[in-house]
Amino acid sequence: MEVLAALNLGDLAATFSKMGMFPVFDVAYYIVSILYLKYEPGAVEVSRRSPVASWVCAMLYCFGSYILADIMLGVSPLDYFQHNSHILLASAVWYLVFFCPLNLFYRCVAFLPVKLVLVALKEVVRCRKIAAGVHHAHHAYHHGFFIMVIVGYVKGSGVALISNFEQLLRGVWRPETNEILNMSFPTKASLYGAILFTLQEAHYLPVSKGLLIVLFTLFMATSKVALTARHSHASPFALVESWVCHLLFGSALGGGEEEHHGAASSPAKAKEELTEGTRKRKAKKAE
Amino acid sequence: MEVLAALNLGDLAATFSKMGMFPVFDVAYYIVSILYLKYEPGAVEVSRRSPVASWVCAMLYCFGSYILADIMLGVSPLDYFQHNSHILLASAVWYLVFFCPLNLFYRCVAFLPVKLVLVALKEVVRCRKIAAGVHHAHHAYHHGFFIMVIVGYVKGSGVALISNFEQLLRGVWRPETNEILNMSFPTKASLYGAILFTLQEAHYLPVSKGLLIVLFTLFMATSKVALTARHSHASPFALVESWVCHLLFGSALGGGEEEHHGAASSPAKAKEELTEGTRKRKAKKAE
Amino acid sequence: MEVLAALNLGDLAATFSKMGMFPVFDVAYYIVSILYLKYEPGAVEVSRRSPVASWVCAMLYCFGSYILADIMLGVSPLDYFQHNSHILLASAVWYLVFFCPLNLFYRCVAFLPVKLVLVALKEVVRCRKIAAGVHHAHHAYHHGFFIMVIVGYVKGSGVALISNFEQLLRGVWRPETNEILNMSFPTKASLYGAILFTLQEAHYLPVSKGLLIVLFTLFMATSKVALTARHSHASPFALVESWVCHLLFGSALGGGEEEHHGAASSPAKAKEELTEGTRKRKAKKAE
Repeated sequence: MEVLAALNLGDLAATFSKMGMFPVFDVAYYIVSILYLKYEPGAVEVSRRSPVASWVCAMLYCFGSYILADIMLGVSPLDYFQHNSHILLASAVWYLVFFCPLNLFYRCVAFLPVKLVLVALKEVVRCRKIAAGVHHAHHAYHHGFFIMVIVGYVKGSGVALISNFEQLLRGVWRPETNEILNMSFPTKASLYGAILFTLQEAHYLPVSKGLLIVLFTLFMATSKVALTARHSHASPFALVESWVCHLLFGSALGGGEEEHHGAASSPAKAKEELTEGTRKRKAKKAE
Repeated sequence: MEVLAALNLGDLAATFSKMGMFPVFDVAYYIVSILYLKYEPGAVEVSRRSPVASWVCAMLYCFGSYILADIMLGVSPLDYFQHNSHILLASAVWYLVFFCPLNLFYRCVAFLPVKLVLVALKEVVRCRKIAAGVHHAHHAYHHGFFIMVIVGYVKGSGVALISNFEQLLRGVWRPETNEILNMSFPTKASLYGAILFTLQEAHYLPVSKGLLIVLFTLFMATSKVALTARHSHASPFALVESWVCHLLFGSALGGGEEEHHGAASSPAKAKEELTEGTRKRKAKKAE
Repeated sequence: MEVLAALNLGDLAATFSKMGMFPVFDVAYYIVSILYLKYEPGAVEVSRRSPVASWVCAMLYCFGSYILADIMLGVSPLDYFQHNSHILLASAVWYLVFFCPLNLFYRCVAFLPVKLVLVALKEVVRCRKIAAGVHHAHHAYHHGFFIMVIVGYVKGSGVALISNFEQLLRGVWRPETNEILNMSFPTKASLYGAILFTLQEAHYLPVSKGLLIVLFTLFMATSKVALTARHSHASPFALVESWVCHLLFGSALGGGEEEHHGAASSPAKAKEELTEGTRKRKAKKAE
């Protein structure tokens, strides 16, 4: 990555960071998000029993980041729903993933090579969202660094942060865990990304925003594709975090913030540890 | 109803749709809403143990639709509480329903013929709320059709959509069900009404708003009065929905979205299936 | 207290009521708030497992009143987070309380004489917050008396009102109780204070705001210090409330709204009844 930064990629980065996300990248985002919804235990039955509840969940998966960021900034949580074409597109994806005859659409997009491409495209959108969230918050609160980090964070994490309430909508309640208590890799990366973009916005980081977007996108896309390919939930930050947490917060080494290692015996955790492969198989059976 | 539409009722409809709701219709709305609160298991004990919690619940029952719609549009959720006379009136109704000596007020309004009139008046208010909600959202987002439907929907459904959290305030937590997962007749009708009013607002429906309000009010009032008179929770939409869900979402025929039929064996459902008569008797005993 | 009121304390009261709260009083507020967070069962383990969740909880304890009041008035809930110095100060207090080597900071501030001073200072901040909340709401809704009371109330009660959701963040879920159902002394006092300040703002109370702030602060500080010194959760309002509730709401005498007496047998209540002393000892052990 140092090599990329060393080359004068300024123009390319600026072009990339201004590229439109609609519709190709956004569709990939919707597909992967709703795929993860379908993996959730019970989601398929809910879609049969109450299509409205399933649709609302799908919208939370696709637009949760906008809803949360709007709430955080005191704007109408439905603000993004004025973009009818985005909502219709996401609804179409939801319909195809859940109700396509012979489950054809699901089989296509859940086919690993296709899915890896979609996952990479989704991470492109995520990075852009974080940058946009930080920028938006910077516009509203010029020196509100904490606000910038928080808004960037919720823009990157989206529905994960309100997963307890999203599950409640489907009649599932698991109070013993939540995304802040047990951060997954994308949530953590969103937090670190939001901090980086805030530092950049505050001119403490001597890189252009375009370049930062390119570098962060590359990191996210490669990490997430590698994790998805290996059906793994491990975090590339584990080692560094383990040491930092040990130094700062006196956490036990090798455990620390990485609850995947430390608390694997709890039933809640064990359920989380199912690899994506298992969850996919379960979702298929439920069909 | 076609006959009514065929007659040139334009003037009458316009007059009806501009008629003031305060105080007669609103009082009926408050009475019926707080009556339903009193039917809830445990509500009477809560009113004795913590009058403040009971009052807050009563306010949610009476003004939940305004609170939700304000949240959806990014306005202060307390906005409606500036109308002191409405709040005082609803508080008086709450006091009379829960604490009137000899339970006199409750006995009067829960007397079936009186209650049927009040229920009919309540439906008049509900229809007007849906229309006002759609109009309000149309004002804020001129082409936000989804926003219009959602705001009209929450205006019509009110506290039902946040019943999980309203119950939580009374120390009750039933995560296995919610109003979106198991829609009751008024919630469903609010959704369909919101869609109709949105189509009308977008000029896709060739009727005047006044006429639509009259027709929808007539439908709602007659349906709800009939259901209340027969202590029934059946939905007039059941047959159509069953077929539409079967075609669109592959739900099993005769079950589908109608969870009353499909999932009657679950304990949560069984509790829901108590007819209003039973609930009333229980509430009486709790006195 | 009548003596104080009889003396012409106008100037002194005005000076006191305009005194800056930052940083001395605010730091005391942060310390006592985060101390109470550390007393919560499981809070120390959460701080080791997920420092981010612990930090978010600490921020809710310190700034919950601002967040709630902002939500109630339709402003961004993060609005107060633009004051970076306050957030950094509270974060530093959080770090010292939870992670200070040898637990030194905690031992100092939890030492009873020190704690009593801090508790008194905290009550000064609470009173000022109630007055500011009522004033703020009065500015937004000139005749919205209910809104003024509610905003003053949430400004005084802070995180207590959302304790269910704050606990959820730490993986704890206790739906059977909440702060409105079982009001603690500070919550009740905040409610009565908010009513008094609203009456004053509406010119129904013939005292200056400065004097009211002084009198209410004196009452709160002495009551809370006395309660803390005696490790007690009893309420000075118990007798009056018992009679008022009996007259107005037909509650049983000697029980009524005081759930501490009436429902002591329930496990949730029994847990609540742990005196501060016990909770402190538990927190120490968890270290």
